[in-house]
Amino acid sequence: MQKKNSVYIATSLDGRIADRNDGIAWLDAIPIPEGEDMGYYAFTNEIDALVMGRNTFETVLGFDVEWPYQKPVYVLSNQLKEIPESHQGKAFLVNGTLTEVLEQIHSQGHTRLYIDGGSTIQSFLKEDLIDEMIITTFPIVLGGGPSLFGEFPKELQFELVESKVFFGQLVQNHFVRKRG
Amino acid sequence: MQKKNSVYIATSLDGRIADRNDGIAWLDAIPIPEGEDMGYYAFTNEIDALVMGRNTFETVLGFDVEWPYQKPVYVLSNQLKEIPESHQGKAFLVNGTLTEVLEQIHSQGHTRLYIDGGSTIQSFLKEDLIDEMIITTFPIVLGGGPSLFGEFPKELQFELVESKVFFGQLVQNHFVRKRG
Repeated sequence: MQKKNSVYIATSLDGRIADRNDGIAWLDAIPIPEGEDMGYYAFTNEIDALVMGRNTFETVLGFDVEWPYQKPVYVLSNQLKEIPESHQGKAFLVNGTLTEVLEQIHSQGHTRLYIDGGSTIQSFLKEDLIDEMIITTFPIVLGGGPSLFGEFPKELQFELVESKVFFGQLVQNHFVRKRG
Repeated sequence: MQKKNSVYIATSLDGRIADRNDGIAWLDAIPIPEGEDMGYYAFTNEIDALVMGRNTFETVLGFDVEWPYQKPVYVLSNQLKEIPESHQGKAFLVNGTLTEVLEQIHSQGHTRLYIDGGSTIQSFLKEDLIDEMIITTFPIVLGGGPSLFGEFPKELQFELVESKVFFGQLVQNHFVRKRG
């Protein structure tokens, strides 16, 4: 079974995933036509499960919306004791090294994973565990806030497989890790 | 006369302009066909002069190549006492605040400026003095080295005017500052 760890995320022109107050209102600066999802549905259709950190999980819980995921969500956390009762059966706690975590998840038959959340993506990149990235760039320089990328021990060469422009303003690039 | 400060630069996927040893060998990872300049000539044809910092100036002087610029180069420096004799008439020392510097340069009839070098570009962005950016992204995560962008006091909205893919691997986006 194909194993693949994928990222699908939006960043500012300066590579940030949130503004200096951890806000994402800047994503609304570009009006997105109703019904246009920029390939998100097609992307999530090809994944078995999500992997995110506690921060992202709790942020999503905090949104005043229905639980947005159709697929199992694995929450990486050494701090969290258990998933809130309301979300049991939908979200699952995992911990250990990333290799251990991936073994646990793969053993459930979930091999095509959507890796989400800034610090989780960075942890995966640090260990060269990201296989593809779909990054949509918004034409704004935020000047502050958390960056998608950080400091990594080695260079990672990717290959561009597709580049699309949405609404004349958003550039979505699809990169696949080029190994060996 | 139109006044415009432009950036034309290559960055890694993680927004760096050099690797952790200040090297640019990663630019050679994508073979560029002979004679292809990715719009550089057309870009430089539309500018009157370059503005760069002392670091970039001295780096270029250190390259074992002929002086690469056909247009006057203004070197921003409060440290440098004078331009080396070999480059007088080609490079000119300017100093003061960016507003003062721009006044000096504009008074020479040079109004369309190519702003180059990481820290000079950041100084201009900090004061919202960049009008357009042509950024070519290479599909590599460097994981270390100087970033094109830094911390800025305010958000700067740009408009995408063109997005091109070169050699199937390099994405060149042209952004224009959207003011007011």
